Amino acid sequence: MNDRIPQAQAYLEHCRQLIDQTLDQHITRNSPSVRLREAMSYSVLGGGKRIRPALCLAAARAMGTPEPAALVPACALELIHAYSLVHDDLPAMDDDDLRRGRPTVHIAFDEASAILAGDALQTLAFDLLSNAPDLSDRQRVAMISELARASGQQGMVGGQAIDLESVGKMLNLEQLETMHRHKTGALIEASVKLGALACESVTAHQLARLADYASALGLAFQVQDDLLDIEGDTAVIGKRQGSDMAKEKPTYPALLGVDGARQHLARLRGNALEALQAFGPEADPLRAIADYVVARRH
Amino acid sequence: MNDRIPQAQAYLEHCRQLIDQTLDQHITRNSPSVRLREAMSYSVLGGGKRIRPALCLAAARAMGTPEPAALVPACALELIHAYSLVHDDLPAMDDDDLRRGRPTVHIAFDEASAILAGDALQTLAFDLLSNAPDLSDRQRVAMISELARASGQQGMVGGQAIDLESVGKMLNLEQLETMHRHKTGALIEASVKLGALACESVTAHQLARLADYASALGLAFQVQDDLLDIEGDTAVIGKRQGSDMAKEKPTYPALLGVDGARQHLARLRGNALEALQAFGPEADPLRAIADYVVARRH
Repeated sequence: MNDRIPQAQAYLEHCRQLIDQTLDQHITRNSPSVRLREAMSYSVLGGGKRIRPALCLAAARAMGTPEPAALVPACALELIHAYSLVHDDLPAMDDDDLRRGRPTVHIAFDEASAILAGDALQTLAFDLLSNAPDLSDRQRVAMISELARASGQQGMVGGQAIDLESVGKMLNLEQLETMHRHKTGALIEASVKLGALACESVTAHQLARLADYASALGLAFQVQDDLLDIEGDTAVIGKRQGSDMAKEKPTYPALLGVDGARQHLARLRGNALEALQAFGPEADPLRAIADYVVARRH
Repeated sequence: MNDRIPQAQAYLEHCRQLIDQTLDQHITRNSPSVRLREAMSYSVLGGGKRIRPALCLAAARAMGTPEPAALVPACALELIHAYSLVHDDLPAMDDDDLRRGRPTVHIAFDEASAILAGDALQTLAFDLLSNAPDLSDRQRVAMISELARASGQQGMVGGQAIDLESVGKMLNLEQLETMHRHKTGALIEASVKLGALACESVTAHQLARLADYASALGLAFQVQDDLLDIEGDTAVIGKRQGSDMAKEKPTYPALLGVDGARQHLARLRGNALEALQAFGPEADPLRAIADYVVARRH
């Protein structure tokens, strides 16, 4: 496992550069409002691990598809993720003033700009997908449908609504997983699926196994997030340490204890890798990302 | 002209019923959060003139296309419009507590629910378009691209950003039109284009003339809105009378005087009808809507 962590870091860095370049080109296009464009750029280009785009590119590679066909879909996934963070941080939502070590968008700009920038980032994701190069209209439509399902009322936004309703409540493990499967899991699953859909000949079986990988990975990501919220410090994780606990949000360590959460994490990593068994070495970046997610310190 | 107003009202009522039924089916699907679903339903199903869906259906008819092919695109347009109203009414934006004679979404629910409902309504628009029946993938992609361009940073959201930046500033006529062309005009233009795109064989020339119609109509709608803001009363127009003036928002009557604004409105109606000259009686619903927009009292 340890061999794969530097490999994952190198791959993530490769993806990050590719994605940042492509996003920058698409956000700095004509916009009638300079302030809106600046708020959008600030939201998207301020760092971040770019895990979702990397998963998309890695899934395309697992299918033997050339990278360029998955590049715009990867950017669309990051735009949806970025918009959700901007809106999540708003005073009426999680009310966070710090994200990735910088003031959140409504602090750096203002609340109205944060709302509008989030709205326009979501739109841009669908704009980019509908014009993505190297794909057929059939592929574009399949990707748009997948991304919309994963990020709307039945996916990410639905999960955020459950999350807000759960503050101060004691959830059991099943309820906690339902919340995370919607809030973060659905978009992580979509990331892998969009990458696979960049291959015209992907089968339903291959899509299902990649979705199994992503489903386990998404939960693992969340368990590690909860552990880092307890163990990490603000400078490294880029948001206030203990901030989830302080808001009385349900967490895995609160439910399972720290050791129990670590065991759960290891089990989920195992499930993720098992789902990739039928894939050859071209799926190694996906395997490396699974190891990285479990081992990451921020 | 007066003959066409009852015709427009009957046509709008026909569209309203069709759209409300279809929207209701799509919003009340599975969602993990009951509150989110309720906030979405409240946002969309609380009345409204459904001008954008009607324009979409009327443009499809002008092209001789059967109504069902334009029905889901018409709903997608209304969802984008509804999401923009919910976010526009938020305290950090226009801070309105009344819309269509009812408490706004953040008053009836709460701010977080209003933000999330708006977000999910936008997503649902693209979800529906990517799965719209009776259309080819090529048509779906063209519609998604058109809707995204019209509603994002280069369109509606860009216009909302200009609008917020313009409060308390004296705009000239050109600047005011630029703001409205983005804020409301782009989506009205998209409404007509999506309807036309429901016809596989629509030509670039037909699309351009329909866009000219929509462009004039969109501005006419705004001029009449500004006039009603001065002349109407709260019970009829469904929001506080004089509320735009009170916020020091630039308006046509403030720039041109009430009589000048009325003349401008008549000119725009003429431009809209002129753009339809090459179309036969199948474009009568579009003509009737132009008359209705100019004559409407709310």
